[in-house]
Amino acid sequence: MTTLTTTDPRTGVTVDTDITATSAETVAQIAARSGEAFRDLRSRPREWRAGLLRALADGLEERREALIGAAASETGLAEARLNGELSRSAFQFRIFADAVEDGGYLEAIIDHASETPLGPGPDVRRMLVPIGPIAVFGASNFPFAFSVVGGDTASAIAAGNPVVVKAHSSHPVTSQRSYDALTAAANAYGAPNGTFGIVYGQQAGSALVADPHITAVGFTGSLHTGKILQGIIDERPTPIPFFGELSSLNPLVASSGAVAARAEAIGEGLFGSVTGSAGQLCTKPGIAFVPAGPAGDAVVSDIVARAESAAAQTLLNSRIHGAFDDIRARLIDEGGARSLVAPRTGDAGFSLSPAVLEIDAPDVTPAVAEEAFGPLVVLVRYREIDEVRRAIELVPRSLTATIHTEPDEVDTRAALTDAVEDLVGRIVYNGYPTGVRVAWAMNHGGPWPATNTQHTSVGVTAVRRFLRPLAWQDAPEEVLPEELRDGSADIPRRVDGVLHLAAE
Amino acid sequence: MTTLTTTDPRTGVTVDTDITATSAETVAQIAARSGEAFRDLRSRPREWRAGLLRALADGLEERREALIGAAASETGLAEARLNGELSRSAFQFRIFADAVEDGGYLEAIIDHASETPLGPGPDVRRMLVPIGPIAVFGASNFPFAFSVVGGDTASAIAAGNPVVVKAHSSHPVTSQRSYDALTAAANAYGAPNGTFGIVYGQQAGSALVADPHITAVGFTGSLHTGKILQGIIDERPTPIPFFGELSSLNPLVASSGAVAARAEAIGEGLFGSVTGSAGQLCTKPGIAFVPAGPAGDAVVSDIVARAESAAAQTLLNSRIHGAFDDIRARLIDEGGARSLVAPRTGDAGFSLSPAVLEIDAPDVTPAVAEEAFGPLVVLVRYREIDEVRRAIELVPRSLTATIHTEPDEVDTRAALTDAVEDLVGRIVYNGYPTGVRVAWAMNHGGPWPATNTQHTSVGVTAVRRFLRPLAWQDAPEEVLPEELRDGSADIPRRVDGVLHLAAE
Repeated sequence: MTTLTTTDPRTGVTVDTDITATSAETVAQIAARSGEAFRDLRSRPREWRAGLLRALADGLEERREALIGAAASETGLAEARLNGELSRSAFQFRIFADAVEDGGYLEAIIDHASETPLGPGPDVRRMLVPIGPIAVFGASNFPFAFSVVGGDTASAIAAGNPVVVKAHSSHPVTSQRSYDALTAAANAYGAPNGTFGIVYGQQAGSALVADPHITAVGFTGSLHTGKILQGIIDERPTPIPFFGELSSLNPLVASSGAVAARAEAIGEGLFGSVTGSAGQLCTKPGIAFVPAGPAGDAVVSDIVARAESAAAQTLLNSRIHGAFDDIRARLIDEGGARSLVAPRTGDAGFSLSPAVLEIDAPDVTPAVAEEAFGPLVVLVRYREIDEVRRAIELVPRSLTATIHTEPDEVDTRAALTDAVEDLVGRIVYNGYPTGVRVAWAMNHGGPWPATNTQHTSVGVTAVRRFLRPLAWQDAPEEVLPEELRDGSADIPRRVDGVLHLAAE
Repeated sequence: MTTLTTTDPRTGVTVDTDITATSAETVAQIAARSGEAFRDLRSRPREWRAGLLRALADGLEERREALIGAAASETGLAEARLNGELSRSAFQFRIFADAVEDGGYLEAIIDHASETPLGPGPDVRRMLVPIGPIAVFGASNFPFAFSVVGGDTASAIAAGNPVVVKAHSSHPVTSQRSYDALTAAANAYGAPNGTFGIVYGQQAGSALVADPHITAVGFTGSLHTGKILQGIIDERPTPIPFFGELSSLNPLVASSGAVAARAEAIGEGLFGSVTGSAGQLCTKPGIAFVPAGPAGDAVVSDIVARAESAAAQTLLNSRIHGAFDDIRARLIDEGGARSLVAPRTGDAGFSLSPAVLEIDAPDVTPAVAEEAFGPLVVLVRYREIDEVRRAIELVPRSLTATIHTEPDEVDTRAALTDAVEDLVGRIVYNGYPTGVRVAWAMNHGGPWPATNTQHTSVGVTAVRRFLRPLAWQDAPEEVLPEELRDGSADIPRRVDGVLHLAAE
C-alpha cells in the first residue's frame, strides 16, 4: 500500500501521513455503499435533509481548530483566510438548508387532466429528483470551500445525493479531518452509512469516475485534469454528466474616466485582487485593460510600486510554483508582453513576490491570454474602447469580467457591457471579481473553458447540477411525492400554467 | 453539386428534388449570419419574442396543405396523424410564447447588498440569458414536431437564440417547405435575417456542428448518430453542449390484478401503443411485463390475434425497414425470445405487419432489450414482482415506464414505482407512454441512453437547454435587463431569498 505524503509549502518539507492510497477494490466498495445510501436518502423528507445540512455546518465549526491547523500547514494560506473559508463552508451548508426548506429548487409543476387544443390531456406532474452518488474532486486553492466540505458536496447533499470525495493530493490530512467531521455529524444525525465516502490517490480518483454507481462528477481544477476525467467518462458504457470549473482569466477594464478619477484606488484594489491568496483564486483578474496616457500611467505606476515592495507569498505546491515561471516566460517570449516587475523568490518553501507585465492592446493575441495561477497580472494599454473590444474577444471565455467607469460614462459602460456579455458568467461593476458572495443570485460559471456546462458551482442554484426532472402521469396520489399532491403545498408550484407561492 | 433525392416509402420510388447538398462554404456563411442575428435577437424584449413565436405558429398553419402533402409522400405517415402533428407543432410555438410572456423561465434572482454572516455582501442579480446560435437535427419519425418546426427549434427561439436546422435526409422537401414557412413568417414579423438557417446533407451537418458560431446542438435520433455528433463536438477547440434524445425501450408492467380485471383493454391499449405510427415513436413500449398464468395468457392471446390480423404498415425509410428484421433476429437468436407472430411484408414500399415476441422473466438479458424501431413488442412473462424488478434493471434506461395496476394493489404499485423511479424520466399509470402531452409539466428525457442530459426536449422546461445564467454585480440600473431592475416586475422573481409573483 502506498503511503501518502504531505508537504508544507511554507518550508518545502515533506513528511509521511498515516493515509494510504485507496485500492481499486476499496473504491468499488465505497461506491457500492454510496449506491445503497442513495436509495435511503432519496426517500427522506426535505425537512430531514435541511436538518442534516445544518448538522454538517455545526460539525464543521466544532472542529474548526483541528481543520485550520491542518490546512495552514498543507496550503500555506493565512489562518485568517482559512478561518473565513471555513465559516463560508459552514454558511454554504446552511443556505442550502434554507433552500431545501423553501423547495423552489424542485421546480414543481402540476398540469391537471384537461381538454387542450390537441384533445384531452392526461394529468402530468413534474419535479426535480436527485440523480444518485456524486463524485467530488476538490481544488488545491480552497481546502474547505471547494474541497471535501465545499460547495459541490453541500449542493449534492442538498439535492438528496450521497457524495464520494476524491481528496486533493495537496491537502490529504485536511481532507481526512474534513471527512471525519462530516461523517461524525452525519452519523450522529442518523444519516445512512455511505452518505459520505472518500478516496485517496490519482488511480483511486480515476476508478471512482469510472465506477458504475457514480452518476455525476463535480470538479474544480485545471483544464488539463478536467480533460483527463472527461476522457474517462467518455469510455464508460454509461456516460455521466461532468461539471467542471476549469480555467479563467477574468478580464478587468478601467475606463479613462475611472483612471482619471481614482488611479490610486484602482491600483490598490486591483493589486489586492491579483495578489489575494497569492493570486491563486479562480476569479483573479489576470488581465487588466488600462488606458494609455498619463492617467493610466498612474495606475500602472501604483501597481508597479506595490509589486516592487511586496513580500514573497507562499504558493500552494511545487507544481504551481514551478509552472509560474514557465508561464510568465511564455507570456513574454510568445505573448510579447514587457516585464514591469519580475518576481523574486522568497527565503523558504514555494514562495515568490508578484509579477507585473504590460502589453499594448493592438498586440494582444491568445498567447498573452494564458492563465497564470499565482500573483501575476498583464496590464493591457489601450487607446479606445474598440481596441478593448477586439482584444477581449481573444481572451478565453471567463467566469467574470469587471468594468470600472465613472457614473457619467454611460455610453462607455454600455459598450463594455455589450462587449463582455457573451464572454463571461458574471459582470462586476466598480469592484473586484474575487471574494465570491455565496447567495441565491450568485453565478460562478461561464462559457468554455471557464466551465463546461450552463451551471454555477457557487450559490443556491448550484443544486440544479445534481438533479434531474421526473414526471408522473395519471398517478394515484399515494405514489406521488408529497410535494406534488393536490391541496395546499409548502413549496412554490406552477399549477395549470400559473405559479403559486408556498402556502403559509 | 449533389442533388438530393426523396423517396416515397409507400412505393419505394425515389425521385430527384430541386435541393442540393449545402457546401462547407455555405454552411460557414449561414452560421456566421446566425451569429449576427444573435446579437440582434438577444436585445429584443420578451413581448417581441412572444409575438414572433405566435407569428411562426400562424405561418405554419397557413401552409398546412403544402406541408402535409410533402410529409405524407416522404414519410408514409397517415394524413390524420400528420395533421395532428402539425397542430401540435403550432401549439408548441404558442405555449412557448405564453412561457416567454410569463418570464418564470428566466429564474430571475436579486440579492441586494447587505450584511451577511461572512461580512458585507455586494448586490448580485442573476437571470438566464440565451447562449447563441443553436444547431437542430430533426428526427425522421416526426417530420414536424421533432424536425425543422419542432420543439428544439421552438424552445431555442423562445430562449432568444437563432436556429440552423440540419434537414433530415428522409424528408428534404418537407424540411424545405417548413423552413420557407418559418422564414416567411419571421421576415413578415421583422425578425433579423439569419434568425433561421437550414443546411442539407450529412457533410453539411458535420460542418455545422463543428462551426465556431454554433453554441449548442439539439438532436433527436439514433444512439449511433448521436455518438458521431458528440465525437465532432469533442474535436472542437471549444466544446459545446449536446442535447441528444437517443434511444428508449419504455418498459410497461401489467400487474396480476390488472390483467385479471381488464385483459382485453390492456391488449388493445398496448397493441395500439406498440403499432401507432408503425411503432416508430420514441416512447413506444418495446418491452411489456405480463404475468404468467391464464389471466396474462389472455392479454398475450389478444395481442397475438390483433397482430395476426393486422395489415402491413409503412415504415419511414429503407434503413429502418431493413434493420427491423436484423434486430428481430437478434432478439430471438441472441436474446432467446420466442416468436409468437412473425411480421409479414406488404405489397409495396417499406411495409410490414407487427411482430410479437415472448420470453420468461428469468431469461431476460440485455440482449433481449434492444430497441427495435417499428411495430414490435417483447412480452416478458413473470411470476412475481421480484422477477420484474431484476429484469427491468437489465433494460436500458428509458424515457418512460408504465405501470398498470388495480386500485387496491397499493403495495404492488409502490414496489413497481420504486423499481422504475431511478430508471426513467416519466412514469405512466394505467395508460400508455405514446402521445406525449405538450405541457408545462411534461418531461421527455431520461438517464443514458434515453438522453445524455438532465433535461426534457418536450414541454415548457425544454427552454432551459438553450439558456445559461449570467450575474450582474453592483450594476448601475441602466445596464441591467429590465427584468432585474428594482421596483415592481412583470415576472416572478426571488428577491433577498423570498419568491415574489409577477406584479399584476
